[in-house]
Amino acid sequence: MITVDGPRLLEDLETLRGFGRKGRGVERVAFEADDRAAREWLVQRMAQAGLDAHIDGIGNVHGRAPAARAILVGSHVDTVPDGGWLDGALGVAAGLEAARTLNGGGEQVGIDVVAFADEEGTFRGTLGSRAFCGELDAAEIDASVDGAGRRLLDALAACGWAGRPIAMLDRDRHRGYVELHIEQGPVLHGDGAAIGVVTGIVGMRRLLVTFHGRADHAGTTPMADRRDAGAAAIALAAGFDALMREAGSADTVWNVGAMDLQPGFGNVVPHTACATLEYRDLDEAILTAADARLHRLCHELADARGLELTIAMIVSMPAAAMDPDLAAYLASAADEVAGGHRAMPSGAGHDAMVVARHVPAAMLFVPSIDGRSHHQLEDTRPQDIVLGAEVLTRALASIQIQSQQPEECQA
Amino acid sequence: MITVDGPRLLEDLETLRGFGRKGRGVERVAFEADDRAAREWLVQRMAQAGLDAHIDGIGNVHGRAPAARAILVGSHVDTVPDGGWLDGALGVAAGLEAARTLNGGGEQVGIDVVAFADEEGTFRGTLGSRAFCGELDAAEIDASVDGAGRRLLDALAACGWAGRPIAMLDRDRHRGYVELHIEQGPVLHGDGAAIGVVTGIVGMRRLLVTFHGRADHAGTTPMADRRDAGAAAIALAAGFDALMREAGSADTVWNVGAMDLQPGFGNVVPHTACATLEYRDLDEAILTAADARLHRLCHELADARGLELTIAMIVSMPAAAMDPDLAAYLASAADEVAGGHRAMPSGAGHDAMVVARHVPAAMLFVPSIDGRSHHQLEDTRPQDIVLGAEVLTRALASIQIQSQQPEECQA
Repeated sequence: MITVDGPRLLEDLETLRGFGRKGRGVERVAFEADDRAAREWLVQRMAQAGLDAHIDGIGNVHGRAPAARAILVGSHVDTVPDGGWLDGALGVAAGLEAARTLNGGGEQVGIDVVAFADEEGTFRGTLGSRAFCGELDAAEIDASVDGAGRRLLDALAACGWAGRPIAMLDRDRHRGYVELHIEQGPVLHGDGAAIGVVTGIVGMRRLLVTFHGRADHAGTTPMADRRDAGAAAIALAAGFDALMREAGSADTVWNVGAMDLQPGFGNVVPHTACATLEYRDLDEAILTAADARLHRLCHELADARGLELTIAMIVSMPAAAMDPDLAAYLASAADEVAGGHRAMPSGAGHDAMVVARHVPAAMLFVPSIDGRSHHQLEDTRPQDIVLGAEVLTRALASIQIQSQQPEECQA
Repeated sequence: MITVDGPRLLEDLETLRGFGRKGRGVERVAFEADDRAAREWLVQRMAQAGLDAHIDGIGNVHGRAPAARAILVGSHVDTVPDGGWLDGALGVAAGLEAARTLNGGGEQVGIDVVAFADEEGTFRGTLGSRAFCGELDAAEIDASVDGAGRRLLDALAACGWAGRPIAMLDRDRHRGYVELHIEQGPVLHGDGAAIGVVTGIVGMRRLLVTFHGRADHAGTTPMADRRDAGAAAIALAAGFDALMREAGSADTVWNVGAMDLQPGFGNVVPHTACATLEYRDLDEAILTAADARLHRLCHELADARGLELTIAMIVSMPAAAMDPDLAAYLASAADEVAGGHRAMPSGAGHDAMVVARHVPAAMLFVPSIDGRSHHQLEDTRPQDIVLGAEVLTRALASIQIQSQQPEECQA
């Protein structure tokens, strides 16, 4: 029977935690010194596992199994500032452990391991997986800058990776992609389930809506004479909540993360007001319907008050379905090893969302204690970490066997 | 027939405009060099008009008529940063012009002129009139600091006024107070009226409401599991608008001038959210009823979401009624000179609001072009300026005559 080496996996995770350790968490921002060091260590560790390993021209770490075809397994090792120790790192370490367990030698379908670059979006969200899948051309990479205006190419050069080729997804080799990740939410922790099998990654929209009106004295200007940008933004934020309750499914989530009223004094009617609206669902039809209703609401509110309006779509990401066959292998392995699983959407974006647009992809989750993530307190019980790696590895073994069948025999 | 010297008044206003000129407006912040220079110039100009003039220990400029009793007329000459040229200055210059016109010599009731200090609240709103009326004790003056932490006493010392006595309201001498001011709102300009007679100065409340919840990932945290401080602040702001529409009168005004959601990212549920709510009305009962309903709403919203709540009453100012007899003199003079008047509340606070708590007080307004104020574009047509001063002076003449009657003969 296949069994991963739990202590070895936990030791790898502890080693990774040392790159950028900050209190109980980790700060390993893409292309910073700690991220570079973690990736260089990973190359060595992959090589020790018999993988042909290197860092490519976008910062992705690839560990290639000695086989003609492979299932690709991994995630990322960069973190947000002041982040946690498992977000991304778990999927890479568990992938490495699966490769060590399953790549016995001589098999037709091996386990390739990948650690994508800059998933967290210092330069661009899921940068590495997009480049790997051919979704970014040279001009886009050339134009990428971080929040401080630093060029991506300069960051790559500082790491010593600029000018290297970017290793690309190879449909002939890569039969699928599987990613283990912490849930980053409270659902599994709350209902006591150890394993979540992801049905799909929600699509999302993020809008920045800005109303422009006129500043007036809030004591001397009658209500009817105002062009109050703040009142429009407040009505939009309240209307957004009502609209999403009505238009959304039970799984739809939404958030008003920021509002800004200018000039921001109690006795001045705001001349400018912005609201940042975000909404996510697995069902693209729900998002599209909400898009249209929100645009209508914005225009109604602006027109009623004589305001100028700008709507900037900051993020528009379609939902990504996971491959049902791969997900079924994960579910079977979970039922066998963990005595059950919970089918659930992923509310956060992941590299799997990108890869799923090109080859079959699937994800599994382990619980996040109290649902905390992107925070020093992010954590998962060691037994859940090992259980997640075990489910991953068993499922990969089944997928390996299935993938070794000649194409024409497959269902 | 009494007639003011319009060109002389306009020349005085132009001279005042020179102290702190900034573009088309004026920046003459209380106790800064330009404010000091303007006040020193005023002392000379008052003395030329036959007034016994000096600057007292709080920065108020007093011009005392050679009579046993007086009607006090004036306003302030400090401005907000980047302010306009007429806010305050008009009332002082028009008061001086009235004194020049009416203080012929030998009358029992003269015209005293005052320019109060720091009406705009660099240290404290209506500082000078409060001190004049005995509403500030030495400890409060001693403790006053500006936004940068500078002590009021140091600012007074830098002007050379520290240690001087503060001239106080004298009920035996001061029979009443009359203040001409620009409207600072669009009402008179909008309906073509040249003169507004103020019925009262609205009371106001300013609340800073803060909700404290928990930051969560906006994609992975189900709606029901959130403690969303932002959603509560948005519901409060929207509910405040609905509540004021229902509880307010036709004249009630309200404003949400500022909102802040922290940490302020689209994908993070806000852990903290503040809203600044302001509301004003002449009718104290409306404000008191709104106070109670707002507090209830805040608690309901916090309780429903498991949030902590703080409500800080930043400003609570009762409404101030103007004296009906004095207002009637202003109305009669306006009807006579300007062919009519508009009775209206003042939506902004003024020194008259403070003085009205101690002696009969009244105000009249001239139009603000496009309602602009506290801005370089603040302006009033010269003919309206002169007309306002003429109405003021005619009304003062009638009040002088009335006040000269022995007490027992007065109505």
